Amino acid sequence: MTEHDVRTLVESHLATIPDFPEPGILFRDLTPVFADGPAFHALSEALTEPFAGGFDVLAGVEARGFLLAGAASVLSGAAVLPVRKAGKLPRKVLREEYALEYGTAALEVHEGELPPGTRVLIVDDVLATGGTVAAAARLVERAGWQVAGISVAIELVDLGGRAALDDRYETFSLLQY
Amino acid sequence: MTEHDVRTLVESHLATIPDFPEPGILFRDLTPVFADGPAFHALSEALTEPFAGGFDVLAGVEARGFLLAGAASVLSGAAVLPVRKAGKLPRKVLREEYALEYGTAALEVHEGELPPGTRVLIVDDVLATGGTVAAAARLVERAGWQVAGISVAIELVDLGGRAALDDRYETFSLLQY
Repeated sequence: MTEHDVRTLVESHLATIPDFPEPGILFRDLTPVFADGPAFHALSEALTEPFAGGFDVLAGVEARGFLLAGAASVLSGAAVLPVRKAGKLPRKVLREEYALEYGTAALEVHEGELPPGTRVLIVDDVLATGGTVAAAARLVERAGWQVAGISVAIELVDLGGRAALDDRYETFSLLQY
Repeated sequence: MTEHDVRTLVESHLATIPDFPEPGILFRDLTPVFADGPAFHALSEALTEPFAGGFDVLAGVEARGFLLAGAASVLSGAAVLPVRKAGKLPRKVLREEYALEYGTAALEVHEGELPPGTRVLIVDDVLATGGTVAAAARLVERAGWQVAGISVAIELVDLGGRAALDDRYETFSLLQY
């Protein structure tokens, strides 16, 4: 399936919800894409395609990124690294905070979970302001691994996520709005 | 790979952490299994094997269940239904509460996300007291779908999860402790 065909298939299932989670926000809802076997499969496969041969592990950002990273990992033969919200991982962690509209949140990975130099492709559903994914990228680098790239289903272009990542990482999005 | 071989492979990567999240709890940590491509693949495949031909969709319970459900879905050609924590889904939801040690939490699915009668296999990482999975099963039934079974990587037998499910559902666990 060409990237164009995948885009058409995924878009045909995507739902757009006005005013969620708050007034004025147009929420892109992937759950109807997940609910269609072929669309979910094609989307998961498309996320790793541009990085073929260039990564060892997919990092999924909690929680929606876990669905896509889990699927894309087994399709590409890679392992998977959960990038978790604070307090969930039982061993020694590295932590990176990122800004929310009010306050901050944090992401964590286990120190030493992967061998030094492992090439990690970061996967998430949506690239918005880029804060979450940038925190995940900092974690990967602090842990001694390499960021192989960033791959998302949807990029909200006006929110400037690519600029927030300082254009430092190869970034792929299947759909742009 | 036989089920015995998968069990040996997964167990060889599993970490056991004493006193997490609180004193006296022995935490079974699957992240080193996820961090090994072949082990993650074999585990994901093993979760659907006993239910082959009997399900249409995998339901993953947020958040760790998403990794396994995502992977198992694409390996089996099924779609995936995220069973989410309260407040995350943008459209009209069904909600089921379950007991925590202090207070309650809730899980949600979108009403009408799947056609009536869809056979849903519920996937999670650990079956402990069964409260979470039982809430997911109630959601599936209230939504008009069928519970095809429950499949988990690890069952903590002493916590009585199977009894909490009233032995109503076919339940598979790869590892028992």
